[in-house]
Amino acid sequence: MVKTFGVIGGGQLARMMITPAQQLGFEIKVLAESEDSSAQLAASQVGDYTDLDTVRKFAETVDVITFDHEHVPIRILEALETEGFNVQPSSKALTFAQNKLLMRERLAELGLPMPRWKAVRSIQEISDFLAEVGGSAVLKTPTGGYDGKGVMFLTDASQATGWFEQFEVLLVEEKVEFVRELAQLSARSVSGEWLSWPVVQTVQKNGVCSEVLSPAPNADLEQAANIARAIAQGLSVTGVLAVEMFETADGRLLINELAMRPHNSGHFSIEGSITSQFEQHLRAVADLPLGAISPTKNFAVMLNLLGVDESNHFVEHFDKALTVSGAHVHTYGKSARKGRKMGHITALSDQSLAEAMDIALAAKQALHA
Amino acid sequence: MVKTFGVIGGGQLARMMITPAQQLGFEIKVLAESEDSSAQLAASQVGDYTDLDTVRKFAETVDVITFDHEHVPIRILEALETEGFNVQPSSKALTFAQNKLLMRERLAELGLPMPRWKAVRSIQEISDFLAEVGGSAVLKTPTGGYDGKGVMFLTDASQATGWFEQFEVLLVEEKVEFVRELAQLSARSVSGEWLSWPVVQTVQKNGVCSEVLSPAPNADLEQAANIARAIAQGLSVTGVLAVEMFETADGRLLINELAMRPHNSGHFSIEGSITSQFEQHLRAVADLPLGAISPTKNFAVMLNLLGVDESNHFVEHFDKALTVSGAHVHTYGKSARKGRKMGHITALSDQSLAEAMDIALAAKQALHA
Repeated sequence: MVKTFGVIGGGQLARMMITPAQQLGFEIKVLAESEDSSAQLAASQVGDYTDLDTVRKFAETVDVITFDHEHVPIRILEALETEGFNVQPSSKALTFAQNKLLMRERLAELGLPMPRWKAVRSIQEISDFLAEVGGSAVLKTPTGGYDGKGVMFLTDASQATGWFEQFEVLLVEEKVEFVRELAQLSARSVSGEWLSWPVVQTVQKNGVCSEVLSPAPNADLEQAANIARAIAQGLSVTGVLAVEMFETADGRLLINELAMRPHNSGHFSIEGSITSQFEQHLRAVADLPLGAISPTKNFAVMLNLLGVDESNHFVEHFDKALTVSGAHVHTYGKSARKGRKMGHITALSDQSLAEAMDIALAAKQALHA
Repeated sequence: MVKTFGVIGGGQLARMMITPAQQLGFEIKVLAESEDSSAQLAASQVGDYTDLDTVRKFAETVDVITFDHEHVPIRILEALETEGFNVQPSSKALTFAQNKLLMRERLAELGLPMPRWKAVRSIQEISDFLAEVGGSAVLKTPTGGYDGKGVMFLTDASQATGWFEQFEVLLVEEKVEFVRELAQLSARSVSGEWLSWPVVQTVQKNGVCSEVLSPAPNADLEQAANIARAIAQGLSVTGVLAVEMFETADGRLLINELAMRPHNSGHFSIEGSITSQFEQHLRAVADLPLGAISPTKNFAVMLNLLGVDESNHFVEHFDKALTVSGAHVHTYGKSARKGRKMGHITALSDQSLAEAMDIALAAKQALHA
């Protein structure tokens, strides 16, 4: 039985796992990248997660290893599994979160809806693909992409010059003309119990999540949930799974990206769901029964707080934001940097998304006033 | 401005302060009694809170000192204040939480409703008081009482034999014929902002809180809130204030005990209020604006989980309790002991207290099955 959770990575996701671990009565330890990580309160070790000895030393102090991010090298996780450590999600599942090419191949085998895509080995192949899909595409590195990095829009194959220096094979995908982006959050336990929250609408700015509306207005909840279930089962995911999707004008949902951990699109669940995504992740990887995912209010809006410069000037007007009734202000204790995720605000309403948005915006504007 | 909270005492109240501190982006440090305290995750120091040097060393690492319990000697807090440390609530306020005799005197000055009481210095004076109030009374030590300790029901003054050995003066109070017990939770910030939750009904077993119903059915909310406000202001309380009261058959509310910290009667607020008592306490002692105290659902029920023996057998059936939809199971990571507060369960309902009670009871029964 799991008594101590071990989280690799000391970011805000690890930080937000501390609450349910404490609440349920578990211990939680974090292998952090630096002394001043967001999850420093639980950081029992600081070290390099790409070094097997470091990660093994950490693994020896916990009952299950799980993750704040998907950057731990698969060879390290495989080594831990061979040595008998409990890694959730497993290296096998995480391979598909780390490598977008393998992910596309596996989702194709499962017959799941995606943008047209191709593995390409040359500028010529990119050029051919561009012609096939009508002249614009998205080029992605198979691994290492994150929050807009390792991704480029293409209308001309020559734009890819240099991209094959680091990667022998790249992924190209058609540029989908979507009407909006959705994210389907669900969780699957080690025993295979699976539960999903209603699909949410996400708004991205510069490749980074900016706002989340829960539930996504007028969305095909069943289609979205079915896709997530097929992925969770087909890829043997354990813990929280986020499936980012494009919705097209004709109502199709096309799978964009996967994350096998709590996800920015699920932060609303801290206040907006009986069981938060962080609690659910811990339950799932500890193979405990999953918690109820009913909403606490009908509507939730989450706004990200991004750094605007090197000074953390949320702190300056923090007290004003706290006067906005019903706004839940979260900050992650991170040093500021332009575009960095520094915190978020969630507001709920039984009446409408608009009411929740008004509350959240009032708090966000107060912070930046 | 407060950046780091310092909590003296490593019990479950300190543990539950960790969540709002993390959420709002603050640091929190705890001076714990032992290595395996309930709040060990935040325990930056282990030591004796009755030793000035120990407490001063801790105070030097934080921006405001607050409390998990009311047992820190007043002389230590006065010394810290003299040296310029920020102590909230202040030694002056805490004096009234530590010393029931001084509390009664001060509440009398404020004209607040209480059971009849008297400071007594001899068995004869107790005997006289018993005659005055109709033959039954409650004898209390002025300091050191807690969860039923330092308290005795009396029908004969001779029962007090030995009680004057440790205390020169004792407190006797009439035994109130109450119909139920209520607790009024509120918070007052350093600047004097004050907000109260609706009064709750508490059920005690063997002097320990067993269940809480929020709000108390058919209670005089205004009378209860007015009493709490008068105490918060009159005693210059900062942080959360819990006022335990008796309700008499004719609807009078009589003040029983005070606590100047988050309180067992307010645990429902973690899920049941927009702002939990733990977040409110931190806001209040950091002199930030207080948060909204609106309920998230109309009704909340909280059941305490008490140790039944030396083995923590909640853990045994923990997974079964987690299957009860809507039950929030909290455990405190404490070693088991008969009667010890080991955790609690909260359930909410928009329909009725009965529905919330059904959910909470189902989870409690599962744990003990």
